[in-house]
Amino acid sequence: MDDNTIKHAVEELLSSAADSETQSAVIEQLELEKSASDVALLLESLPLAERLATWEQLSDDRKVPVLVEMRADASESILKQQDENLLLALFTGVDADTLLELQDSLPEHLLENVIGRMDEEQQHRFSAAQQFEDDEVGHWCDHQPLVVPGKTKLKVVMRLLRRHLPPHSHVVYLVDNRGNFTGTVRINRLFGADPALRISEFAEADYPTLDAKEDIYVAADQVAASGESSLPVITESGLLIGRLDMGTAYELQSEKAESQLMAGAGLDEDADLFAPVRQSAQSRAVWLGINLMTALLASWFIGLFEATLQQVVALAVLMPVVASMGGIAGSQTLTLIVRGLALGQISKANLKPLLTKEVKVGALNGVLWAVVIGLIAGIWFGDVLLGTVIGIAIVANIVCAAISGIFIPVLLDKLKIDPALSGSVILTTVTDIVGFVAFLGLGSLLLLG
Amino acid sequence: MDDNTIKHAVEELLSSAADSETQSAVIEQLELEKSASDVALLLESLPLAERLATWEQLSDDRKVPVLVEMRADASESILKQQDENLLLALFTGVDADTLLELQDSLPEHLLENVIGRMDEEQQHRFSAAQQFEDDEVGHWCDHQPLVVPGKTKLKVVMRLLRRHLPPHSHVVYLVDNRGNFTGTVRINRLFGADPALRISEFAEADYPTLDAKEDIYVAADQVAASGESSLPVITESGLLIGRLDMGTAYELQSEKAESQLMAGAGLDEDADLFAPVRQSAQSRAVWLGINLMTALLASWFIGLFEATLQQVVALAVLMPVVASMGGIAGSQTLTLIVRGLALGQISKANLKPLLTKEVKVGALNGVLWAVVIGLIAGIWFGDVLLGTVIGIAIVANIVCAAISGIFIPVLLDKLKIDPALSGSVILTTVTDIVGFVAFLGLGSLLLLG
Repeated sequence: MDDNTIKHAVEELLSSAADSETQSAVIEQLELEKSASDVALLLESLPLAERLATWEQLSDDRKVPVLVEMRADASESILKQQDENLLLALFTGVDADTLLELQDSLPEHLLENVIGRMDEEQQHRFSAAQQFEDDEVGHWCDHQPLVVPGKTKLKVVMRLLRRHLPPHSHVVYLVDNRGNFTGTVRINRLFGADPALRISEFAEADYPTLDAKEDIYVAADQVAASGESSLPVITESGLLIGRLDMGTAYELQSEKAESQLMAGAGLDEDADLFAPVRQSAQSRAVWLGINLMTALLASWFIGLFEATLQQVVALAVLMPVVASMGGIAGSQTLTLIVRGLALGQISKANLKPLLTKEVKVGALNGVLWAVVIGLIAGIWFGDVLLGTVIGIAIVANIVCAAISGIFIPVLLDKLKIDPALSGSVILTTVTDIVGFVAFLGLGSLLLLG
Repeated sequence: MDDNTIKHAVEELLSSAADSETQSAVIEQLELEKSASDVALLLESLPLAERLATWEQLSDDRKVPVLVEMRADASESILKQQDENLLLALFTGVDADTLLELQDSLPEHLLENVIGRMDEEQQHRFSAAQQFEDDEVGHWCDHQPLVVPGKTKLKVVMRLLRRHLPPHSHVVYLVDNRGNFTGTVRINRLFGADPALRISEFAEADYPTLDAKEDIYVAADQVAASGESSLPVITESGLLIGRLDMGTAYELQSEKAESQLMAGAGLDEDADLFAPVRQSAQSRAVWLGINLMTALLASWFIGLFEATLQQVVALAVLMPVVASMGGIAGSQTLTLIVRGLALGQISKANLKPLLTKEVKVGALNGVLWAVVIGLIAGIWFGDVLLGTVIGIAIVANIVCAAISGIFIPVLLDKLKIDPALSGSVILTTVTDIVGFVAFLGLGSLLLLG
């Protein structure tokens, strides 16, 4: 991805001099040089009006491939502005895989219309994919692997291979006459072989396969771990329905990383850079609302110490320090555990030594920073006792943070809730409350009077 | 990756009854069934003592491959406990690629000793890789692609291919007699061809290539975008030095995602689940120290309003709400921009419309939550004016957060600092300070007296 090309095109398209002639020149250049995914990135980088104007300039045969590459919110921003007859014309003749990608963004009756116009084979593929959930590999696998009946003569296979080898293919899949998977043949084994032989003579016994009901991200990891460029996707009954190749596996992995980045801020991976204001505001409000509740909860705990705060106002000044040191220390433990859970490394057996280690690390850092902060606070407010109070509160909060940083993600994982998404909110709620209560509580005990 | 196998093995190895007999049985089973990377994950999941004991049980020929798969901190925890003669024996005979992976973890003189014992070809490869920085693809590329001189007869190439096809290979690389890259041939094109022909007759003109000085993660994206299973890596002068395949590209991408996850909490991607306590505490202290400085800065601003806080203690109770709502809203904008920067979508040209949109979204959500929080605060403390003050402060902070969420990552990116790493700390410092100053400042103006 050469991002400067996109930036440059955006600048030209948004410059004050951009007329439709400039637009069409920029687009023509991009269509020549760039892939559909680059053009998709460009469209996503444009505000709505310019996005639609640029889209109009695309040649008709590029429009659908570009839509497929766009994130859902952005492609929908275009689709819902189009005339339906025009869309029907664009989508007539697309294959099942393309339609599957855009299925959720198209109006129901348009979808039916397009399906009705597909040939029988594509219709069959489309409805076959619908039998799987959209997080199962059977829904998304590539339906055009190299498949031949096991009894095919080498001569025929070689002719086929010579004409066409799909990307990431280095094996031929063999099926019996009911379409059930029977094995694979590595194509390099065929060099110099007798063309009169049957291909099944070269079949490999235990080639790895993917279960059609497997989670797509797990399946992507399985393809990568196999060392093969693609793996066949098989139903429970043994039917070969397609394959997942390394190209798709790479895309899936990058989609997952993007969705985790976005989820950390309560955003959807499909969120559009230039979504309409109301839509953006609405989709972000939920996360703000959840955060408000946790913040109010913390405030309620602070409220318990109103009398103390009135007498020792230094406590109010310093209390965010106690809360935030706990939050940072806790998020370090949390992140380590979230990674461990994702890698499958955390179990009941190593939880105890892990807890011991993290508590020790917390205690060590807690004491270190307690001394530093205690000294700063003591000098700042000229009060040794205040320094002592904040020091003890810091140690307590960092140690609690270490314990929470382990138990919160482990519990969420047990409850089948993604700890990468919600772990951090829960953790900081805990460290805020523990920090405020420890600091203000100790302050009430030792500083009042 | 079947994570239950790892969990199960960890449980057996950590159970109170685990003697060396149990250990060796568990390991034998794993070696039979599992890849080196699974065994590496298992070792990482064990506390130090058990990790070393289990490592001892590995058969000698698995030890080095397992070390290569482990994250650096974990493999170092093992390496530094080993007798040097034993290590020398283990490493004698490893290839250049393996040694490159572990280079930084081995003592200098051991490394020299191992290199001295490699054959000339491997020594040459090792020193060739050293000519590139360790973030350049030339340092890491696979040095065993299928390479033949262009004048080779098909008959020879076919014999070669039949015996051995490296993973993710579907092309043969052609070189001239100085080792310079001259083109590629797709192996499927060779079926049915006359074995007496030269391979160069089938060469493809414009096959994509990678520059040896390219950043490894960019190179991984380039391989994926090309649709090929691997791309040749070429020096500036045209020398073919290796290839990057989709298997490695997938690993690189997953490494990058992991390192971003960890960096978000100020952790190194190599951080070990069971690192020694002192080492862990030390490596985390820096991030805590940075956070302390930002927290103290925020406290200093709160300190400016000591007199106000003393009179209106409700301000102290509610001030974390204002700061945290700003932090959340800002991190949503920040995350959207960080993704846009990573995709190459943000430029000078679309910054202004982006800013307009985000400020509008901020204003809308600001007003919404200002009303909600204003009502809650007003009722809680029975003070309409307090509700008004917090409402205005919320709107101001959320709008400022939207602006900061755009400019902070864009500026960091311009300064070549990864905005995914440091953006969030800077942003929350800004939203904390703006939140506290707006709320307490307005409070001083309107509530005192």
